[in-house]
Amino acid sequence: MTVSMLIDCDPGIDDALALALAAGSEALDLRGITTVGGNVGLDLTTANALALRDFLDLGDVPIVPGCSGALVRGPMDAAHVHGAGGLGDAVLPPAVRAIADGHAVDFIISTLRDNPGEITLVATGPLTNIALAVRKEPRIVTWVRDFVIMGGSYTRGNHNPAAEFNILTDPEAAAITFNAGWTTTQVGLDVTLTARVTTRVLDRMRDLGRLSSLILPSVQYYAPITAESGPALHDAVAVAHVIDPTLLTLTPAEVRVETAGHYTTGMTVTDFNSPTPNTQVATHLDVDRFWDLMITSYGRLAGRLG
Amino acid sequence: MTVSMLIDCDPGIDDALALALAAGSEALDLRGITTVGGNVGLDLTTANALALRDFLDLGDVPIVPGCSGALVRGPMDAAHVHGAGGLGDAVLPPAVRAIADGHAVDFIISTLRDNPGEITLVATGPLTNIALAVRKEPRIVTWVRDFVIMGGSYTRGNHNPAAEFNILTDPEAAAITFNAGWTTTQVGLDVTLTARVTTRVLDRMRDLGRLSSLILPSVQYYAPITAESGPALHDAVAVAHVIDPTLLTLTPAEVRVETAGHYTTGMTVTDFNSPTPNTQVATHLDVDRFWDLMITSYGRLAGRLG
Amino acid sequence: MTVSMLIDCDPGIDDALALALAAGSEALDLRGITTVGGNVGLDLTTANALALRDFLDLGDVPIVPGCSGALVRGPMDAAHVHGAGGLGDAVLPPAVRAIADGHAVDFIISTLRDNPGEITLVATGPLTNIALAVRKEPRIVTWVRDFVIMGGSYTRGNHNPAAEFNILTDPEAAAITFNAGWTTTQVGLDVTLTARVTTRVLDRMRDLGRLSSLILPSVQYYAPITAESGPALHDAVAVAHVIDPTLLTLTPAEVRVETAGHYTTGMTVTDFNSPTPNTQVATHLDVDRFWDLMITSYGRLAGRLG
Amino acid sequence: MTVSMLIDCDPGIDDALALALAAGSEALDLRGITTVGGNVGLDLTTANALALRDFLDLGDVPIVPGCSGALVRGPMDAAHVHGAGGLGDAVLPPAVRAIADGHAVDFIISTLRDNPGEITLVATGPLTNIALAVRKEPRIVTWVRDFVIMGGSYTRGNHNPAAEFNILTDPEAAAITFNAGWTTTQVGLDVTLTARVTTRVLDRMRDLGRLSSLILPSVQYYAPITAESGPALHDAVAVAHVIDPTLLTLTPAEVRVETAGHYTTGMTVTDFNSPTPNTQVATHLDVDRFWDLMITSYGRLAGRLG
Repeated sequence: MTVSMLIDCDPGIDDALALALAAGSEALDLRGITTVGGNVGLDLTTANALALRDFLDLGDVPIVPGCSGALVRGPMDAAHVHGAGGLGDAVLPPAVRAIADGHAVDFIISTLRDNPGEITLVATGPLTNIALAVRKEPRIVTWVRDFVIMGGSYTRGNHNPAAEFNILTDPEAAAITFNAGWTTTQVGLDVTLTARVTTRVLDRMRDLGRLSSLILPSVQYYAPITAESGPALHDAVAVAHVIDPTLLTLTPAEVRVETAGHYTTGMTVTDFNSPTPNTQVATHLDVDRFWDLMITSYGRLAGRLG
Repeated sequence: MTVSMLIDCDPGIDDALALALAAGSEALDLRGITTVGGNVGLDLTTANALALRDFLDLGDVPIVPGCSGALVRGPMDAAHVHGAGGLGDAVLPPAVRAIADGHAVDFIISTLRDNPGEITLVATGPLTNIALAVRKEPRIVTWVRDFVIMGGSYTRGNHNPAAEFNILTDPEAAAITFNAGWTTTQVGLDVTLTARVTTRVLDRMRDLGRLSSLILPSVQYYAPITAESGPALHDAVAVAHVIDPTLLTLTPAEVRVETAGHYTTGMTVTDFNSPTPNTQVATHLDVDRFWDLMITSYGRLAGRLG
Repeated sequence: MTVSMLIDCDPGIDDALALALAAGSEALDLRGITTVGGNVGLDLTTANALALRDFLDLGDVPIVPGCSGALVRGPMDAAHVHGAGGLGDAVLPPAVRAIADGHAVDFIISTLRDNPGEITLVATGPLTNIALAVRKEPRIVTWVRDFVIMGGSYTRGNHNPAAEFNILTDPEAAAITFNAGWTTTQVGLDVTLTARVTTRVLDRMRDLGRLSSLILPSVQYYAPITAESGPALHDAVAVAHVIDPTLLTLTPAEVRVETAGHYTTGMTVTDFNSPTPNTQVATHLDVDRFWDLMITSYGRLAGRLG
Repeated sequence: MTVSMLIDCDPGIDDALALALAAGSEALDLRGITTVGGNVGLDLTTANALALRDFLDLGDVPIVPGCSGALVRGPMDAAHVHGAGGLGDAVLPPAVRAIADGHAVDFIISTLRDNPGEITLVATGPLTNIALAVRKEPRIVTWVRDFVIMGGSYTRGNHNPAAEFNILTDPEAAAITFNAGWTTTQVGLDVTLTARVTTRVLDRMRDLGRLSSLILPSVQYYAPITAESGPALHDAVAVAHVIDPTLLTLTPAEVRVETAGHYTTGMTVTDFNSPTPNTQVATHLDVDRFWDLMITSYGRLAGRLG
């Protein structure tokens, strides 16, 4: 049985590799891709999504752009991590098809409204689009099947000691999202930093034909790769969880997003002892089985792409 | 020549009396009413707008509901000021016509997009709808003719020593709005608190036929009326400015909305010496001519309503 | 009958002119001068206090230096207002006598402890010393006769739209002081900005012999002097109140100091409707009688100084 | 060779057991005990220090009380953890000797000034006294030999998800202390939570004669003791580090104390990548050798006490 998934993303290297996982999975029915400004600006994340739809053979899945910047704050990006274009050194053919009409916020609302209880909404970028959707149509929290994000951490941040990039980029949107009344499944740095492309992993991804021309130049750009360390494919873990919910251990907690600190704005403050949990926090990833799923899916996709 | 106006409001006693001013003016072409939760909840502000459309003979102007609560924060209202229903002791006949389809945010966007340079957008409630519209379609700041709000102050607040109610109810929305790149015309407490219904003013509003059944029980509920003091019709001043821009003295300033203070959240911090003004701040109201405009317009409307 | 006064100050032009008022008054028994970093650094405020003691013939009053910078925050000063040396263009002879042993905080505590109910403590700079004294010996709030500060405002600031310099320089110290359990008499910008040296006032201060060599080059440096405007002698108003409590109208209010705002840190948020007032806020100054007191005292001092 | 130590503490169960370690060590010369309000109120922490001086045979070491509450904020304590009296179920004979004259802040300053480069200052409670000493006499940071605190963490808090109790109780004091210009050695929860009294440890502390009447009823009150878990003797780890600096691994980092967050105030935000470290952060404790030191010292003391 397949899961219907709508993904809101900002590709971005790890977003791209998460989309590749979705493309190679037999368990997912991808119902739409919405884009948001984040790793790079909205124009680039949208252009990357369009190029990836063609390159990954994602069919007619609609791509709908959303917000270009954070809800309340000024803009920031992570082009220093993902490259000026957002995909490291990977170069994809230009897209042949265009974006769908409309706005990501409306596409999210209408997709959830028209398929109540059926759609898993995954967000792998800043939560601006999701927050606007929640405020424009609060009932989406009852229409969604599952809501899964890559973002935050319950220990330490990556962009600074306290905050992870997706949450830091739009902390007010994250605060809205965690407080919206649904249960967020939070895939944070605590687990994603264990999903690193080491040399051993990289070796398993070499023989993927055309697909390698996306994967290799992007992950090699992303971070140095050694036997012990390498780039962490954060966003792919969130999509992997949708495909196989047994990969992650989830622990209930109350998560609040700091929006007022001098040094802690964008932190996801996580109380595992709260009597009123609002989040299922990923606390462990079965790393071996994660990579097995990744390699299998990539292999299946590579067979299709040639 | 008439001005085309779109009003986003939360009726509310002074919103109602501002709509009555619009109804009685020959200089305004009211293109729509959008509603927001504020003085009372969204259901009530929308119901009041619907009842007012009929009662004030506003014709086919569309009424479109928007957001029920603040962007980031929890809900608050001013039912202790406006009464449980929002209109004090005034009781209007139930509305015979319904709301328009769609959402206030989209109605604001499409109205401005379809009439570039023509529409004056007036906001007399919390700025939630406006902020969402700005974020969903940033180009509205270039499409609007004028943007006028009732809210804030450069001296002291009303809901607490620092903050005025509309801004305090949704400070992040206000911050988005003031920072959006357009010039906000801000009609704040500094001038609206001079627009008080004293006994002398009240005497001029007694012979208004059916219209009196709205005005008298609402203003008398709003605040005690004496020879020197009485309820301030905040929102009506904003609409009056659209009708006659000579009533207010405007002074350029840079306005920033405090969102982080212990005691000052919701304050509009106003720097009249800034080299980068973003606001035209109302610093004086010609009170006598304001009431002349009000009474004349109410008289004209009363003649129509019978 | 004389009032025993201990003054904590940061001379500073208006501090100097406040000390000159004290020196010329027959109603004050000056028991000590403690210094704090503020308008200029502690070394300069202390050197200025020493020079002023000799120049103003203040006798053996002890001068005790205190804290050089704010309690929690980094340093700031107002040398752009008071000149690099702190007294504008005034040049005083070097001091012949030295500071007393010890620290301002201990001198404040011991003076109040040894004279319970007798000493009026006046603070005309940042409240760092006072806050440390309160924390080191909380009982000083019961030993003081009166506590009078120059600082803050209930309308608008001077250093920025929200904050007055003394409070902004050390907002945490101000918060400690207002919350300490005594009643603060607050002489803020609301009244001190009415105590301006206009040309008419200046003319009354011209024939003061040697004293003119302090007053004229300092006030003329402080701000441009016209028929309608001129420098406001903030600190002198606080000392004038100690000499003649009928000059100021005081209104009870609860004052809280903002320490967390983006734009409002250092603001004295003043609630005149609070049922738990902690402050007597100066809301009106009898300006004519203030200048009469100033000129009379300066004349008396000039007669003594030659 | 012995180390001269001055300890500022709030006994408190783990403070008491840290003092017992100091009493049993041959490597420490305890030069003074200053007290602060924290785990329980100042009256109780001082009374406990006095009783412990007699009970632990600490000789004539002076005990000087300091501040009763936090610098800027209202009071809080941890009586729910340490018991109403602060020592759990332990009952000590009343003290026979009294406190020394003076205030902790002055005792800290004078002890460091009179012994430049010789004194290791250890703080195991809220940092109120230390912060006041730094502000009253900034030169203490150059006079101290080492400054060691128990407080904070670089991962998660204990009193809430972000903050450790000592820092949370007085975050502004902690901010002053970390920013004072010296290098703080920070012994935080990251290591102290590994110093737990398990049943195995408890068994090694049973045959300690009179000393057991302090240790057993306090640790057994502090937290449930099992084979795997038990109360963490936080403060004792800081003192152990002074005795044997090889027990802890220290890593340089820049530590800033959050004072403005909704959910994170009191957090020690730790940047291990900063080019401007101000702190040596304890990142590992050799737990076995820690307990060996504890048991050896306690045995030595027990032999003395009988």
